[in-house]
Amino acid sequence: MSRFSLPQDPAFQAMNTSLGFDQRLWPFDVAQSRAHARMLAAQGIIGEEDRDAILSGLDAVERELRDGTFPFREDDEDIHMAVERRLTEIVGAPGGKLHTARSRNDQVITDLAMFTRDAAQRAIAQLNDLRRVLLDVSEAHLDWPLPGYTHLQRAQPVYLSHHLLAYFWMITRDVGRFQAVLDASAELPLGAGALAGVNFDTDRRMVAAELGFTGVTANSVDAVSNRDFALDLLHALSVCATHLSRLGQEVVLWTSSEFGFMTLSDAWSSGSSIMPQKKNPDAAELLRGKAPRVWAHQAALHGVIHALPLTYNKDLQEDKEHLFDAVDTVEVCVAAAAGMLSTATFHRDAMAAAASDEMIAAVDLADLLVKQGTPFREAHGVIARLVREAVESGQTLGAVAVPELGDDAAAVLEQSSWLESKVSEGGTALVRVREQLAQARALVG
Amino acid sequence: MSRFSLPQDPAFQAMNTSLGFDQRLWPFDVAQSRAHARMLAAQGIIGEEDRDAILSGLDAVERELRDGTFPFREDDEDIHMAVERRLTEIVGAPGGKLHTARSRNDQVITDLAMFTRDAAQRAIAQLNDLRRVLLDVSEAHLDWPLPGYTHLQRAQPVYLSHHLLAYFWMITRDVGRFQAVLDASAELPLGAGALAGVNFDTDRRMVAAELGFTGVTANSVDAVSNRDFALDLLHALSVCATHLSRLGQEVVLWTSSEFGFMTLSDAWSSGSSIMPQKKNPDAAELLRGKAPRVWAHQAALHGVIHALPLTYNKDLQEDKEHLFDAVDTVEVCVAAAAGMLSTATFHRDAMAAAASDEMIAAVDLADLLVKQGTPFREAHGVIARLVREAVESGQTLGAVAVPELGDDAAAVLEQSSWLESKVSEGGTALVRVREQLAQARALVG
Amino acid sequence: MSRFSLPQDPAFQAMNTSLGFDQRLWPFDVAQSRAHARMLAAQGIIGEEDRDAILSGLDAVERELRDGTFPFREDDEDIHMAVERRLTEIVGAPGGKLHTARSRNDQVITDLAMFTRDAAQRAIAQLNDLRRVLLDVSEAHLDWPLPGYTHLQRAQPVYLSHHLLAYFWMITRDVGRFQAVLDASAELPLGAGALAGVNFDTDRRMVAAELGFTGVTANSVDAVSNRDFALDLLHALSVCATHLSRLGQEVVLWTSSEFGFMTLSDAWSSGSSIMPQKKNPDAAELLRGKAPRVWAHQAALHGVIHALPLTYNKDLQEDKEHLFDAVDTVEVCVAAAAGMLSTATFHRDAMAAAASDEMIAAVDLADLLVKQGTPFREAHGVIARLVREAVESGQTLGAVAVPELGDDAAAVLEQSSWLESKVSEGGTALVRVREQLAQARALVG
Amino acid sequence: MSRFSLPQDPAFQAMNTSLGFDQRLWPFDVAQSRAHARMLAAQGIIGEEDRDAILSGLDAVERELRDGTFPFREDDEDIHMAVERRLTEIVGAPGGKLHTARSRNDQVITDLAMFTRDAAQRAIAQLNDLRRVLLDVSEAHLDWPLPGYTHLQRAQPVYLSHHLLAYFWMITRDVGRFQAVLDASAELPLGAGALAGVNFDTDRRMVAAELGFTGVTANSVDAVSNRDFALDLLHALSVCATHLSRLGQEVVLWTSSEFGFMTLSDAWSSGSSIMPQKKNPDAAELLRGKAPRVWAHQAALHGVIHALPLTYNKDLQEDKEHLFDAVDTVEVCVAAAAGMLSTATFHRDAMAAAASDEMIAAVDLADLLVKQGTPFREAHGVIARLVREAVESGQTLGAVAVPELGDDAAAVLEQSSWLESKVSEGGTALVRVREQLAQARALVG
Repeated sequence: MSRFSLPQDPAFQAMNTSLGFDQRLWPFDVAQSRAHARMLAAQGIIGEEDRDAILSGLDAVERELRDGTFPFREDDEDIHMAVERRLTEIVGAPGGKLHTARSRNDQVITDLAMFTRDAAQRAIAQLNDLRRVLLDVSEAHLDWPLPGYTHLQRAQPVYLSHHLLAYFWMITRDVGRFQAVLDASAELPLGAGALAGVNFDTDRRMVAAELGFTGVTANSVDAVSNRDFALDLLHALSVCATHLSRLGQEVVLWTSSEFGFMTLSDAWSSGSSIMPQKKNPDAAELLRGKAPRVWAHQAALHGVIHALPLTYNKDLQEDKEHLFDAVDTVEVCVAAAAGMLSTATFHRDAMAAAASDEMIAAVDLADLLVKQGTPFREAHGVIARLVREAVESGQTLGAVAVPELGDDAAAVLEQSSWLESKVSEGGTALVRVREQLAQARALVG
Repeated sequence: MSRFSLPQDPAFQAMNTSLGFDQRLWPFDVAQSRAHARMLAAQGIIGEEDRDAILSGLDAVERELRDGTFPFREDDEDIHMAVERRLTEIVGAPGGKLHTARSRNDQVITDLAMFTRDAAQRAIAQLNDLRRVLLDVSEAHLDWPLPGYTHLQRAQPVYLSHHLLAYFWMITRDVGRFQAVLDASAELPLGAGALAGVNFDTDRRMVAAELGFTGVTANSVDAVSNRDFALDLLHALSVCATHLSRLGQEVVLWTSSEFGFMTLSDAWSSGSSIMPQKKNPDAAELLRGKAPRVWAHQAALHGVIHALPLTYNKDLQEDKEHLFDAVDTVEVCVAAAAGMLSTATFHRDAMAAAASDEMIAAVDLADLLVKQGTPFREAHGVIARLVREAVESGQTLGAVAVPELGDDAAAVLEQSSWLESKVSEGGTALVRVREQLAQARALVG
Repeated sequence: MSRFSLPQDPAFQAMNTSLGFDQRLWPFDVAQSRAHARMLAAQGIIGEEDRDAILSGLDAVERELRDGTFPFREDDEDIHMAVERRLTEIVGAPGGKLHTARSRNDQVITDLAMFTRDAAQRAIAQLNDLRRVLLDVSEAHLDWPLPGYTHLQRAQPVYLSHHLLAYFWMITRDVGRFQAVLDASAELPLGAGALAGVNFDTDRRMVAAELGFTGVTANSVDAVSNRDFALDLLHALSVCATHLSRLGQEVVLWTSSEFGFMTLSDAWSSGSSIMPQKKNPDAAELLRGKAPRVWAHQAALHGVIHALPLTYNKDLQEDKEHLFDAVDTVEVCVAAAAGMLSTATFHRDAMAAAASDEMIAAVDLADLLVKQGTPFREAHGVIARLVREAVESGQTLGAVAVPELGDDAAAVLEQSSWLESKVSEGGTALVRVREQLAQARALVG
Repeated sequence: MSRFSLPQDPAFQAMNTSLGFDQRLWPFDVAQSRAHARMLAAQGIIGEEDRDAILSGLDAVERELRDGTFPFREDDEDIHMAVERRLTEIVGAPGGKLHTARSRNDQVITDLAMFTRDAAQRAIAQLNDLRRVLLDVSEAHLDWPLPGYTHLQRAQPVYLSHHLLAYFWMITRDVGRFQAVLDASAELPLGAGALAGVNFDTDRRMVAAELGFTGVTANSVDAVSNRDFALDLLHALSVCATHLSRLGQEVVLWTSSEFGFMTLSDAWSSGSSIMPQKKNPDAAELLRGKAPRVWAHQAALHGVIHALPLTYNKDLQEDKEHLFDAVDTVEVCVAAAAGMLSTATFHRDAMAAAASDEMIAAVDLADLLVKQGTPFREAHGVIARLVREAVESGQTLGAVAVPELGDDAAAVLEQSSWLESKVSEGGTALVRVREQLAQARALVG
């Protein structure tokens, strides 16, 4: 029986239940229950027959959950209670022994840690695919010039490969962040009990080993209060989503009529309900539009944890929906980035035309003067004056610069030289891009 | 046929579809389609027979949607296309005429405006219920003293009625914010077309009148780009959720063993999976824990709209999930606040004991000196010294103050006088609380 | 003397002081002290000589603050204590009477309410200037066509005036939000005391009238706990900043080489430290880049207030920096928007060329078929097929459509007809734009 | 000369300048300029005399900046331009050569990387101090029982040392996050030029070594676009601030009259302007109130970067104020946590009394039954019934339980046994706490 004399108000039950969203934790809940039962028996806390009954019962529960035949009940408060309830229906009294030396507090955070580790591993695999796509597309457009932009103004030409490799390095840092999440969630919380530890001589390291953790949490109070690894996962997801939003923005710009650098596959485009001519880059726009929900989830979880006294408070139940939606959102976005990029067509002529504007070589002319002995700041002033003359007279930069600066200036204005002169490490000269590609390939195998 | 030669990639389709969440807009979509069809016929843009076919078809569609028998298809991109597709299946060619002089851009924002207005109206009704609960509970505990706190330190006693009425005025301001949302969404966007207006002589004001709008948007570009009323609704919801989080915090404190001011009904409490003695104020904790998701949705929608060029961009599809979840969350929270408060028990003795600490009257002793001619700042210093003596000697404030300050001080330290002396307008003296109650009752009828 | 036996730790003092940022509240603090002193005397709580001493002392204090000669001290905890301390240095004992029947709790929130009202009024004036700029620029480019975009794809042409007026209506809604802030902050908090009201028979309405409030707060507990109007002001600021970020984005796009629709004045542009040719739209970029800090302040203030028990808690001191920076940020942004727009040059030919792409008239061709009796959905399909044929064969839409659809199609493809046919209310036809302009002018005088 | 024909509008200049906040970067700017000059000379790009002139000039500039005598000018756009301008005033023509093979784009991000690394290192040192405080206070209160709480309801007793060590482990994870920031910012961006690399054969690794970086960025486009390490630093700061907000909340609770577990030193308390008796835990409240601004800065920086096309955009100037304020805020908070905790007094009797409520041992009674052979779920039901009987009859749990459960139950209800029976790894039994302390001490030396 319960200590309560009244049933829960339906409005309260509707607010309080988490079954609607924590159902997806069932694979972790079943796995941890198996490991817990084995440990209880190994330590002599329950008998071997009880253990075997529990294990075979959990097999049955798992089958029902996997097949969608699990009989959820209105008053199942969450997936943990539902699994234990159903287990006991199936195997009887031994089911009631599973919760020995365990509390929902350590059970819940253990499921969440397992979910987090699984999500991080899946993100890494998916991001590796995206890195391979970026490498393939870079290699296929190795020496295609386009303008690099600052302030969305044409600044200096680069090769498309070099530009796309910038995303490769962003995604590489993302992978590092997800790996940090794996480290941050490597200690098993289970065994902390409600908050103080348990009244039994358990073997937490046995459970950890079975569930793929490398250690156990050092402090039971911290174990059930902690949501750091959830914040770490949200950080990794947020930065990744922000990276993809920049890619999305560039695809939107490049597929516009004004830029004309890129055409998406029809398979990654959509039309208009009213305008028959429209071909819209919806996926690229959604890469932009979905990023804010990810970092908003992160801010919200900070808000939830903010000023919470130790240890478990019901507020912490709010961790799950924020985390789940962020994981799902980024998964969709990474897949879209890979699918959209790998099927897109780039337009060499349009990019080259934009990159051939002589104005873009102004800094190269200034550097010519520097090599001839003029201090850079002074050289910058000379070229700025020539730029202004060119703009005001409607001439090309070459037309005003070559007469004053001589044939060396004309040589600088040969377009290919603009790119190939950027020989510094990490620069856009082809020799440097090839270096990068080799370095990058080595990372993704 | 479509202008595209390839079908959409399934991964793109999965990302792009909004049917999963915009389904709930169907009542508004059907209603606006009815009004649109009537207007098209009234203006002679479609014939009366077409109109009648459309209207009867929409009746059939509505029945299917209401009964859950509507046959959704995998490739229904959103609820708007699904409704039109189904309508045309049912009524044939006239269904194809419904989208005349309408674009999904103005259709979508019209549905969202209708949803917003409906949500605001429902919120107002629900908050009025909560205001009545607050009044009832206040009246039932009119003259029950408890400490008012600053910095969570006992500061000055007030009546429980006075304290709870503070929430009444917060919720009253919330109602005002939802009313502002109704004003902010009072202009019909429909008729803006894709962005430029339409090629037909439509009568937008006829549609507005049928759908409960008081006017029409003045600029078609603005009409399809605008999401202001969604931000306004999120603001109203966020402030309301923040208010309720404060109430939740107070309930958590007051139901603790340490405060002991309040007991929740068993119907609004939950137990522990491991600790049989626990009776937890989960609903109050969720009032705290759910507030951040509401203002995070608001921040996220700012993030979505931020730096979007006009007019419609696919990013704006992200408005809906943020708005829907925020509306649903606050609805659950308001119901919980009302249910929890109306069934709770307050403990007069515990509150009175906490309010009877003489330290709490220090400012009243200072004011006594003021009335006897001492400048306040000096009086404050005198009493601070007496407080320190009392603390250091372990005596009550009266024990050190009355010998020095005389019998008037003893009179001030009569507990009831502490409360009844707060006679200023809006103060806690009973005469003032009764004034407030009358003023408050007048607002909610 | 104080009740404390140890001086404050310097690290604590550094954290606790708010003088660094709340100094700017002094004009409100002095004004409220004047009104409070007059009321105290009018009610006989202090004498007329004390009042006169206080008033002349406040005059002296105000002069020092205005001239920058006010002698701040290390241990001034905040501007309120500094003003009272200095007043007492100047006038002696009467200064110690000013704080009679007042607490810092009601004093602080009164200053903040006065600041809020002042900020809202200044925002309205500044936004009215911006609205006039938008009207002037719209009128100067009344019939200049440019493409309207959806998904950053050319969709349908509009007049530049019509496009810019969309911002007029956004800003008009912003003005409404700031007016709502004035309503939300119209009740004077002063007189609530620490939280319970005061032990004196004060006349709060007299103070309210002097300070420009239209009423007094109804509940003393609510008065000192409430920060709603600060959240309302942050909402008004956030939405305004988000609007300006969209304008900023469009200016960045339009001033790019690829669009070429607009050139900023040199007075609103900046150069590059290295690239002499660069002319960058920094102000437009900052309209984008500064918006997030505004809504982040709003989210942060929700975070601060979240789960705070009533009444005053020190956390609430954090309201000020969020509010002040948001106000200052938006002030800079509105000025920049007005300055940048009013001095920019638009390029008629570039916009017209972009707007003359026949693809943009696809919906008009579809509507032609509708007027000839084809259901819209079917007409949309016919034109989509023609679009595809045009794209695949590299022809204009007219070249494939006119042979099939006849001379009426040729007439539709006359460019001016695309714009002038959008005759629906709020559409881009000139007659409708002129209507809008008249309506808009009437609003700003 | 400049390419511009008009001076900047003062309103634009006011918006555009970053000198007000980026001044604090000067130590990094001077250091990187020294390293850059040495490298330029080593590579033969500038002469040795020029290098020496630059280095001695930078010494002079540094002295002026350190002494506060640096003559800033109205039109100094930022600290980078100010330093170069002043250098050239001092040393003449060689100053103009410093910007050879460098752009403000790579210069700015290099300064920010150096700031980030410095901030992370200082945070680690400060957090190590806090960890030592936590260890000292834990050791001093090794065996003082207090209730552990879930849902702010007394749940199970723990030792104060065990409770405080939970914070030790939180802060330990924080240190790990700051170390990750050091890794994330270990590659030198300088040498990326404006975006494409530079026209000179530079030696980036030489510069990296001098400035304490372990490598160089692999891609110049990424180098100037990247703000990941700033987001990583904000993440580390946000989680730390959230941790401290929980500590702040517990101090606020524990110093309340209702809990009475703790008294702050007068040196870490403040009084009231009106209530002479008040002793307020302002620092603890500010630990709560300041956390939201930190994660709001993080959200804001995501908002700034969101959807920005590569490479540098002026929006990125907004990175600095968010980062600087977050660093400063957390620095103040960590110092406050250490100062407040190390000087506070705990009240053994009050804590022990709260921890001696027999209800808190309900789970131990249930575990007794388990050890006697009852399945846990059934045992939980038995004890829940006894709890209810005790509550309803106003008896202690022992009074109803011992008669039914026998002498073993009485033994369990011996208070010390409740704590010492929690022998599982990480539990609160003293043997386990001593293990933890040893493990923790080993980490901080």
